[in-house]
Amino acid sequence: MARTPVSEARRSGDHDQRPAILFDLDGTLIDSVYVHVLAWAEALRRGGIELSVWRIHRRIGMSGGLFVTALARETGLELSADDVERLAQFHAIEYERMRRAITVLPGARKLLHTLTAQGVPWAIATSGEEVGARPALDLLGTPGAVLVTRDQVRYAKPDPDLFLEAADRLGVHPSRCVVVGDSIWDLLAAQRAGSLGVGLLSGGYGREELERSGAYRVYEDPADLLAHIDEVGVRHPI
Amino acid sequence: MARTPVSEARRSGDHDQRPAILFDLDGTLIDSVYVHVLAWAEALRRGGIELSVWRIHRRIGMSGGLFVTALARETGLELSADDVERLAQFHAIEYERMRRAITVLPGARKLLHTLTAQGVPWAIATSGEEVGARPALDLLGTPGAVLVTRDQVRYAKPDPDLFLEAADRLGVHPSRCVVVGDSIWDLLAAQRAGSLGVGLLSGGYGREELERSGAYRVYEDPADLLAHIDEVGVRHPI
Repeated sequence: MARTPVSEARRSGDHDQRPAILFDLDGTLIDSVYVHVLAWAEALRRGGIELSVWRIHRRIGMSGGLFVTALARETGLELSADDVERLAQFHAIEYERMRRAITVLPGARKLLHTLTAQGVPWAIATSGEEVGARPALDLLGTPGAVLVTRDQVRYAKPDPDLFLEAADRLGVHPSRCVVVGDSIWDLLAAQRAGSLGVGLLSGGYGREELERSGAYRVYEDPADLLAHIDEVGVRHPI
Repeated sequence: MARTPVSEARRSGDHDQRPAILFDLDGTLIDSVYVHVLAWAEALRRGGIELSVWRIHRRIGMSGGLFVTALARETGLELSADDVERLAQFHAIEYERMRRAITVLPGARKLLHTLTAQGVPWAIATSGEEVGARPALDLLGTPGAVLVTRDQVRYAKPDPDLFLEAADRLGVHPSRCVVVGDSIWDLLAAQRAGSLGVGLLSGGYGREELERSGAYRVYEDPADLLAHIDEVGVRHPI
């Protein structure tokens, strides 16, 4: 994917100057973080790996592969590529079993609908695979949303690829994008993409963790963001 | 339960001057917070109450009654005493169903064993009921531990009663006690008891949340606390 360097793009003015919003999915638009956490805990246990649940929580939002690799490094385990793949499959099975518990976060549908109605471009960029993300779009009532998933880019968060690809698809320069996410990985990736990061508490991270990871502003959940949308550069009357 | 006021106790010197440690249970010694969170989420859903999971997480550590009452106030719901009791029963059923997933936190057994071996008095004070807490003592290998539970005091955390009662049973003045807990409710209760509060990250709260709630020091989990036990006033060589 060829991309114009930031400075050149600014000079050439070849990007639309409207703001755009790039959303993370889990914990940002749907209330799925805690289910992911316990699904990973169970998957790791099936794989013979005992790990405290809070450590899993603090890694959620990375891709499954990065996540398992990071945990293995921290715990000193040696895992083969096959091990990582097997653990990811265990997680997918557990998540599927528990997914009926998952709902949309308060305000998420209204926020997306309002942005669309106001002509503000937005997209969803998730470290999850497309097969898992599609049902969430149905929950959100936006089956046609621009969706970038793990399998469509080389590196997942905290690398910026997912957000850069999402900005590209919207035709908006990353520096004009606001990245909205619940995890520190979203906010680190936002900084690396050159975008403004906005944190939501709805994934269960603390406010200060998100601020320290570069959040320009932190809100409780999508409803709270919508109530303060003028603070993140959406200037249309809503 | 008659108690000597702090100032009088200090004057009269009628308390043992050794330090003592008062532990919270869930998220502090056993890895049960996330299971409690999803059990409450399911219980509330069965009761017709939709609430974001992170809001439940931030209330865990209060007693079931206080917890439901606080959530009802925040969400504007009107709940009868019967409703609250029914929700607590739903939670107990869900928790029981999921409890096989629960393990001891790293270092918990060794920490308790070491304190005992060094003659440092310690107790466990939990906002849970005795019937739920007893199996955790077996997991910890300390069936005979001093245990104060919700049903044994008038008010649970963030009121100080649980920790005051635990200090009383150990015969140690609260001002000589170090309260170890994973939630802001433990740390607020510690302040109200006149004890030093130490936070653990193992319940999934952020470090800064715990510090802002009055934690004198924050460690990752019981293993990390044991590695730094001299910082909290246990002066015996360990």
